[in-house]
Amino acid sequence: MIGGGRGAFIGAVHRLAAVMDGKAELVAGAFSADPARSHASGADLFVDPARVYGSYAEMAGAEAGMPADKRLDFVIIVTPNHQHFPPARLFLEKGFNVVLDKPATFNLREARKLRRIVRKSGKVLVLTHNYTGNVMVKQARQLVRRGGLGAIRKVVVEYSQGWLHGYLEGTGQKQAAWRTDPRRSGAAGCIGDIGTHAENLARYITGLPIDSLCADLTVFVPGRKLDDDGNILLRFKGGAKGVLHASQICSGEENNLNIRIYGTKAGLEWHQEHPNELIVKYPDQPRQVFRRGNGYLWAQARKFTRVPSGHPEGYLEAFGNIYCEAFRAIAAEVAGKPLPPDLDYPTIDDGVIGMAFIEAAVKSARLGAKWVKLPKL
Amino acid sequence: MIGGGRGAFIGAVHRLAAVMDGKAELVAGAFSADPARSHASGADLFVDPARVYGSYAEMAGAEAGMPADKRLDFVIIVTPNHQHFPPARLFLEKGFNVVLDKPATFNLREARKLRRIVRKSGKVLVLTHNYTGNVMVKQARQLVRRGGLGAIRKVVVEYSQGWLHGYLEGTGQKQAAWRTDPRRSGAAGCIGDIGTHAENLARYITGLPIDSLCADLTVFVPGRKLDDDGNILLRFKGGAKGVLHASQICSGEENNLNIRIYGTKAGLEWHQEHPNELIVKYPDQPRQVFRRGNGYLWAQARKFTRVPSGHPEGYLEAFGNIYCEAFRAIAAEVAGKPLPPDLDYPTIDDGVIGMAFIEAAVKSARLGAKWVKLPKL
Amino acid sequence: MIGGGRGAFIGAVHRLAAVMDGKAELVAGAFSADPARSHASGADLFVDPARVYGSYAEMAGAEAGMPADKRLDFVIIVTPNHQHFPPARLFLEKGFNVVLDKPATFNLREARKLRRIVRKSGKVLVLTHNYTGNVMVKQARQLVRRGGLGAIRKVVVEYSQGWLHGYLEGTGQKQAAWRTDPRRSGAAGCIGDIGTHAENLARYITGLPIDSLCADLTVFVPGRKLDDDGNILLRFKGGAKGVLHASQICSGEENNLNIRIYGTKAGLEWHQEHPNELIVKYPDQPRQVFRRGNGYLWAQARKFTRVPSGHPEGYLEAFGNIYCEAFRAIAAEVAGKPLPPDLDYPTIDDGVIGMAFIEAAVKSARLGAKWVKLPKL
Amino acid sequence: MIGGGRGAFIGAVHRLAAVMDGKAELVAGAFSADPARSHASGADLFVDPARVYGSYAEMAGAEAGMPADKRLDFVIIVTPNHQHFPPARLFLEKGFNVVLDKPATFNLREARKLRRIVRKSGKVLVLTHNYTGNVMVKQARQLVRRGGLGAIRKVVVEYSQGWLHGYLEGTGQKQAAWRTDPRRSGAAGCIGDIGTHAENLARYITGLPIDSLCADLTVFVPGRKLDDDGNILLRFKGGAKGVLHASQICSGEENNLNIRIYGTKAGLEWHQEHPNELIVKYPDQPRQVFRRGNGYLWAQARKFTRVPSGHPEGYLEAFGNIYCEAFRAIAAEVAGKPLPPDLDYPTIDDGVIGMAFIEAAVKSARLGAKWVKLPKL
Repeated sequence: MIGGGRGAFIGAVHRLAAVMDGKAELVAGAFSADPARSHASGADLFVDPARVYGSYAEMAGAEAGMPADKRLDFVIIVTPNHQHFPPARLFLEKGFNVVLDKPATFNLREARKLRRIVRKSGKVLVLTHNYTGNVMVKQARQLVRRGGLGAIRKVVVEYSQGWLHGYLEGTGQKQAAWRTDPRRSGAAGCIGDIGTHAENLARYITGLPIDSLCADLTVFVPGRKLDDDGNILLRFKGGAKGVLHASQICSGEENNLNIRIYGTKAGLEWHQEHPNELIVKYPDQPRQVFRRGNGYLWAQARKFTRVPSGHPEGYLEAFGNIYCEAFRAIAAEVAGKPLPPDLDYPTIDDGVIGMAFIEAAVKSARLGAKWVKLPKL
Repeated sequence: MIGGGRGAFIGAVHRLAAVMDGKAELVAGAFSADPARSHASGADLFVDPARVYGSYAEMAGAEAGMPADKRLDFVIIVTPNHQHFPPARLFLEKGFNVVLDKPATFNLREARKLRRIVRKSGKVLVLTHNYTGNVMVKQARQLVRRGGLGAIRKVVVEYSQGWLHGYLEGTGQKQAAWRTDPRRSGAAGCIGDIGTHAENLARYITGLPIDSLCADLTVFVPGRKLDDDGNILLRFKGGAKGVLHASQICSGEENNLNIRIYGTKAGLEWHQEHPNELIVKYPDQPRQVFRRGNGYLWAQARKFTRVPSGHPEGYLEAFGNIYCEAFRAIAAEVAGKPLPPDLDYPTIDDGVIGMAFIEAAVKSARLGAKWVKLPKL
Repeated sequence: MIGGGRGAFIGAVHRLAAVMDGKAELVAGAFSADPARSHASGADLFVDPARVYGSYAEMAGAEAGMPADKRLDFVIIVTPNHQHFPPARLFLEKGFNVVLDKPATFNLREARKLRRIVRKSGKVLVLTHNYTGNVMVKQARQLVRRGGLGAIRKVVVEYSQGWLHGYLEGTGQKQAAWRTDPRRSGAAGCIGDIGTHAENLARYITGLPIDSLCADLTVFVPGRKLDDDGNILLRFKGGAKGVLHASQICSGEENNLNIRIYGTKAGLEWHQEHPNELIVKYPDQPRQVFRRGNGYLWAQARKFTRVPSGHPEGYLEAFGNIYCEAFRAIAAEVAGKPLPPDLDYPTIDDGVIGMAFIEAAVKSARLGAKWVKLPKL
Repeated sequence: MIGGGRGAFIGAVHRLAAVMDGKAELVAGAFSADPARSHASGADLFVDPARVYGSYAEMAGAEAGMPADKRLDFVIIVTPNHQHFPPARLFLEKGFNVVLDKPATFNLREARKLRRIVRKSGKVLVLTHNYTGNVMVKQARQLVRRGGLGAIRKVVVEYSQGWLHGYLEGTGQKQAAWRTDPRRSGAAGCIGDIGTHAENLARYITGLPIDSLCADLTVFVPGRKLDDDGNILLRFKGGAKGVLHASQICSGEENNLNIRIYGTKAGLEWHQEHPNELIVKYPDQPRQVFRRGNGYLWAQARKFTRVPSGHPEGYLEAFGNIYCEAFRAIAAEVAGKPLPPDLDYPTIDDGVIGMAFIEAAVKSARLGAKWVKLPKL
């Protein structure tokens, strides 16, 4: 693991998600750019001190030389955004598979470059847009793909949080500090941090790429340098329209990611905070509530079930589902076999699209919320 | 009553709402532009045939000559939009108070003109933006006014329906026919019909006028002439931002009007389909659910209660609450007394703002969803 | 109207419900046993002072002599329970149709007697178990009758309130005072006041009579004379089992009446506080949410709709639906025609069963919560 | 691990819950009474074949002889009920700490005996009444203990499932087979399997022991030998009353465990299927919704948080919370230190009470649902 030391948030989540099914073990890490902190964190995590490193470069060098039976199957990169590309590149080039936290990179240019490196390396890169790991999101995707909604006309996707409603970065809180710092987070704040999850979720379910967007991004909290709120009009290729709004200043919201998709035949609704249900609405028949863990779900959704219906699975399990698929790919790669054809996880291609989305949104906002077309990717 | 004959929808609602508290009685009407239909409708409604008219003009003439003890206290106008201004003007000028369905008029020019007529007449004009009659909406307004949310930063307001997801007007359905006809409905379809309710609701609660907007309006259903879907970015005077989206093609949605408002201290949420609750979310304390009918509500909300808490009130009761306030004003006017200072109903001023909103949205959309400033009113 | 004067609750509800569809008008009343209060109440209600009476007996005498064109079509009795039987008997015997608030009478003996009187009179008696007027309750009943749940196995019905969690009767609050007074309320408090609604609701939907019950009734509030809480095990004829619990000391509950019914094929769930939805749960397919106002409902439910789907109807509308059916019967009776065969309102037969339920519960409780069989009725 | 081989359900849950925080590892097991199946299961689970055993007795013998550095810290027993006591006794007597699935034993006699053995052994025994591991259940307990509800008057606790609505045991389904078999499950079916969870949950939150109960247990599915449904009236020591109903034939229910508790000041409500929220209802102020992961929770609840608020935790995390506390105890025991004073997990004392509850319920039912006092324990 690269990053994820003391004071980090997402690193701990990755560790829980990666090991929950007993298919992986944490054996090495460069947990902080500060060697002392890295070592202290490694000790917290019961990692053999010999495999705790002061920097990712040191780790890449040392681990690349490990004998086959001790060699890492993959590395997890959970550093702030500006430190995604350098270690991802290095480990891929050293022959390691990589699990990379989102957004893919610091900017679109890096993402395109990373895509080339991944392709050249032949290694697996999994981008943890974790919300697509939710079982009912997978059911939703199948529903759309099988024509259950008819032709898609409208998408409303939202990701509202409230934790940055005040100037939290001024208190030294580590999560707030890097996320609001343009040198570490990139050109966008809220839209990069969580708006990309919303974009990814909408695209995962509908399969529709955004053609153009019009983004009104705002910095509400005095002293903050990056957007903490964004309202975006979307036009999808093929004619569907949409709204994407994300915020970190919605006082009292916790992690309110939700999506509604309307087609010519029906509409669907899913809420991350109540992830075990998928609501489908029809013009002429009763609403249907699909629930996780039931035999009537499609195989693509059903197969991720850990516990029976009515036993709620949550955020970690969804995150773990990304790892389930990652492990299928990594196991094949490590064994020198072709990757399974039905893998279901976000890739560097999603990362490139996500970065293009962020850059288009920032560009639109800088123009005063004018329409901007997404580039060819 | 003008309009509201056989096949109409909102006329029946007005009748229920106006009489529910036993304070009004239907005694005369020109229920249709078709005299035969008007008379048949009058008979359905047990109105004295002598006071059923073939046209509103005929009615205005005859009723203006009634002796004091039979004279109408007010007329209700529930015709399609293009037939709002002419009867409203006529009855006001003949000295009648008027209850007028929304949107105020066919276009902004008419609305401004009507405002002048109302002012000159000294009569009461009540515009039935009925959703502001909901008790918990009134509580929400008080909460904002008393600073419970802090300074407002973001408003998300939605009004989604699905009933026009197909080409219903092609079947001759009367409601669909006039609402999708530019000659009767005006420049806007969905945005005029229900988008204005959303605008009005947001303004009623927050008190914030819209400074400018960027509207992407769409006609999804082939053959339709007016927008059936609209996504609008909002900038309010004072710096708040917002999203307003309305649709009549959201398959499976019924009457999904809802609003969320976020301030520096807290956020609130209200859903028209579950109108007896108001949810308030805080960054640092448990959520609060305020429920209709309880003693802890502020007087401005509490006073509208008909039945105890836990006995759900709904759409008609909220509509009736607009009439409660209308009757307070009309009773004063009829008695020649000054209007009470605390009246709480939508007026022609709201109508002018609503029409300006519609025109700005249409203009923005025609420019390809560019930002348009709302005019001075 | 008999009863329903100043300070009363249910009288006002009856008035709203009876007039909401414009099919009835309040023209006479003995609104209180106190003549002065009766007259003051009549004035509040705009009733012709000549038809406001100091007692129900006076009213019965005077109104029975009215000419045909002024004669009352029916009387509404909304007095405390001990004053149900005497006026009901008198008005029936004088040839009036009667709408009677629940529970039917002071005790079972009176109820049986009233049943004989009704039968003999040939008049209509409607008992306002108003919750069965809810549209989705009617849909539920149809669902059960058409076999949608399979054979019924289990019923869980609850009616929880909190308004009597303290010694409210000690403050002189009128509603609390008579409901907790054995001389006015009868042998039961909570179980008579609201437990009967629960019993009636369960029987209305399932059609199953209770065979025997085991009731643990409690007086929680010191100084109170009648039960304010009851938990009852039910055994239905045919083998279904059930739980009925009702309370008026559930602090924070408002009017939480809800029911679940499980059969061999599916289960259903309905909540009075969210009355526009009916949830049906299946072992092997997605849940279905039926919503008021939609074309897919069965005719028996659909016909009561006042406003379109998504426009919530509530307590008053459901109450009004009882009156809709009452009026169909009364209109026929007044016209000397046979009653329509498909009338759907609670009758004196329901009242007799309700009183038997109350007496069995009280008897069981007095025996220390032993099983008691319901009598032949 | 004892039990939990191929085809088992709860064994897998224990494994996930035990390892999720990286504090335990599965190293040995007797996964089935069938040695071949045990070995196959061990291989599935990557357990060293040398430490996979053909029986728990063989395992106890071999593992007791392991050197200190390989010695098991604890064993998990997840066999059917009739195989709880023998291995628990054996491993305790061999000096191992034990995590035991509920209900504690086959009958009350065994439970009392096991209690003596635990006490004598000085070892830790953790009984996995997992639902008390939910964070919001812990908050609820604190709320009651701190007097937030006032004096408790009423408890309504339910555990409804539908998976046994048909004769599933007839298909050979392993879970159904043993749970409906009196020789493996004990004297009770549904009440033992899930009714005990309800009893435990109510007692955990309120601290109130049951004084006496009246249980109507039913076998609904033809051919079944043990109750699949139970409705129970409860009287708690101190005067509170309650209803406990549990079922496995509620078609369409999944895992609907929920509880409501009402006191003189307020009421609370919690639903296992939406575990991240705790609703508190007041007679005179807005409802409060407490949500997992927030700083305003009491320390006893807050400390179990894995991910931030709004990131739903579910069944496995709650189960894992039992293990968190178990590990604190086991770590102390292994280190020879005194157990921490604030341990929060179910013990053999809870097991004894649970078995007494089951036996009282079965006895009451056999008497025809008469009141039965719980024995001194």
